[in-house]
Amino acid sequence: MAVASVSPTPLLKDELDIVIPTIRNLDFLEMWRPFFQQYHLIIVQDGDPSKVIKVPEGFDYELYNRNDINRILGPKASCISFKDSACRCFGYMVSKKKYIYTIDDDCFVAKNPSGEEINALEQHIKNLLSPSTPFFYNTLYDPYREGADFVRGYPFSLREGVPTAVSHGLWLNIPDYDAPTQLVKPRERNTRYVDAVMTIPKGTLFPMCGMNLAFNRELIGPAMYFGLMGDGQPIGRYDDMWAGWCIKVICDHLGLGVKTGLPYIWHSKASNPFVNLKKEYKGIYWQEELIPFFQSATLPKDCTTVQKCYIELSKQVKAKLGKVDDYFLKLADAMVTWIEAWDELNPSEGDSAELANGVGKLTI
Amino acid sequence: MAVASVSPTPLLKDELDIVIPTIRNLDFLEMWRPFFQQYHLIIVQDGDPSKVIKVPEGFDYELYNRNDINRILGPKASCISFKDSACRCFGYMVSKKKYIYTIDDDCFVAKNPSGEEINALEQHIKNLLSPSTPFFYNTLYDPYREGADFVRGYPFSLREGVPTAVSHGLWLNIPDYDAPTQLVKPRERNTRYVDAVMTIPKGTLFPMCGMNLAFNRELIGPAMYFGLMGDGQPIGRYDDMWAGWCIKVICDHLGLGVKTGLPYIWHSKASNPFVNLKKEYKGIYWQEELIPFFQSATLPKDCTTVQKCYIELSKQVKAKLGKVDDYFLKLADAMVTWIEAWDELNPSEGDSAELANGVGKLTI
Repeated sequence: MAVASVSPTPLLKDELDIVIPTIRNLDFLEMWRPFFQQYHLIIVQDGDPSKVIKVPEGFDYELYNRNDINRILGPKASCISFKDSACRCFGYMVSKKKYIYTIDDDCFVAKNPSGEEINALEQHIKNLLSPSTPFFYNTLYDPYREGADFVRGYPFSLREGVPTAVSHGLWLNIPDYDAPTQLVKPRERNTRYVDAVMTIPKGTLFPMCGMNLAFNRELIGPAMYFGLMGDGQPIGRYDDMWAGWCIKVICDHLGLGVKTGLPYIWHSKASNPFVNLKKEYKGIYWQEELIPFFQSATLPKDCTTVQKCYIELSKQVKAKLGKVDDYFLKLADAMVTWIEAWDELNPSEGDSAELANGVGKLTI
Repeated sequence: MAVASVSPTPLLKDELDIVIPTIRNLDFLEMWRPFFQQYHLIIVQDGDPSKVIKVPEGFDYELYNRNDINRILGPKASCISFKDSACRCFGYMVSKKKYIYTIDDDCFVAKNPSGEEINALEQHIKNLLSPSTPFFYNTLYDPYREGADFVRGYPFSLREGVPTAVSHGLWLNIPDYDAPTQLVKPRERNTRYVDAVMTIPKGTLFPMCGMNLAFNRELIGPAMYFGLMGDGQPIGRYDDMWAGWCIKVICDHLGLGVKTGLPYIWHSKASNPFVNLKKEYKGIYWQEELIPFFQSATLPKDCTTVQKCYIELSKQVKAKLGKVDDYFLKLADAMVTWIEAWDELNPSEGDSAELANGVGKLTI
């Protein structure tokens, strides 16, 4: 029955890759079969590369383990995290598609309040293909949605919107809480389905979760770096946060939109809060300095491509966050390595990135 | 049955006034009886003062017509609009309560998706009594709501929030559209119940509608001026918008929160789009200059009370918007008159306003 809800030629079938980081067999894909089977998957295998990851039959995929990453990137592989789902960003880099959807392997199909299975990918695509409105708040939420519009008092000059670079989806059941909140509220579940998609206003940062996330790779791909986490690093679970702060500053600079809200996925399993606390605790106090840094970060006008923005941001990280901890010196270097690796694997992209920047002209 | 859903001693019973601008008998109150009857009403009668407005029995109210306004304010009555619902702000001024709820007389009780009647006032009070989070976006919406919290990556130093000054409620059925949108989409109805309350981030403006609005009079009252509209003025239907831009700039400066979302009311009747177009058309092009003005407006540090902020803003209006149209010179003067009248009717308020400003210390 779920199959019936999928159109015969799904949206952006040949323009979108689904990136999945994993350490286990991908049985979870069975539930997603009606929605994902016609798309191409990029599986980034974390941990022991000798382990064989089983992918359900009928899916079209390519799989990279650590040996593949090392072989493809050589010494630049140092910028890709190991033993942390941050490794997923390698998938963004090797994709040749315009759009990326990334999802965790403990995420299942959620149902809307009417009991219908939610085609999360379809909603993300709708979010990405319709404009964003970062310069003024629309009280009836997404003005481009059917049955909605801009309300009285919304400036007409801003109603064209700007291109959407990122679509951040949410989670029913297990909410994405930090370790302290997990410890304090072990039984809390998210049961509230909020039927809205919002543009995050310009100048406002948000906690971007990598569990259920889509983006336009041409517009923002080179900034979607998930940092240095996991094996050999002092923190974990800040990979998506780091990427979220970076992409938001750059989207604000380039006049691109970031949306959050629908679609929901069903997040099945809470991770271990004790393990999480160990990964997070440095991040919890570091972020008190990181947030003001990103809130006040500005990029010069000559940063007209995502790559230029990102390199500039890496310099500011080195100059201003290096004193927080040496880790940020290493991270700043890794940001540069990431861009070098990106450009190596995506040699023709300079042009499209320049094109993306044309968008900046729409900004106020 | 609706009565059963109201607690015997309603929240803030003696600390809140309901302000209703009207030109007709208030039959609409019958539907609100279970929710409003224990509160005090301030009715601001617009238009012909000789007309008798009938108020359903059992309601506790005071009523002011134009003669009363002229008598009470003397020459300062010039700052209160006539033949426009902007006159409602006179009610804010004569109230002696800490909180105000204002509602239009064509607004009825809405139902939630479960079919239960929504106690709009109770939701507004909840919004006003819980903090706001203007400095960082929480992807699971109001973190203080039951079943929700701050998500991973939300800085802990910001989780205390800031006091909430304004609660902006929404409308099912007839959306609050401008005349052009009304003309283009005459049949559009808002049927989407979005179960969320959001803080409007710092630095972001929004179109504040006066139809279903509550605020903390002690924190922001003197800035809730609905401007010069209607009789003798070149525009209408920008009263609440004007107030919304002003309060947002001042709340941002003082570190106060503005929320939007729940509660919904049922907006019964679309106003005439042709009449609206005549009222709005100057506003539609003026606002293209007003929005950048308010987006870039900053207040000096010595503006430590709402009154000081508002007087400063009036000076900036005169200096920068006077060239848009002479109307703004007149409006800037009226802003000053409004504050003088407010202080005359609320002589002891200087202190509480200074107190409100203590809040500013929480800001980043």
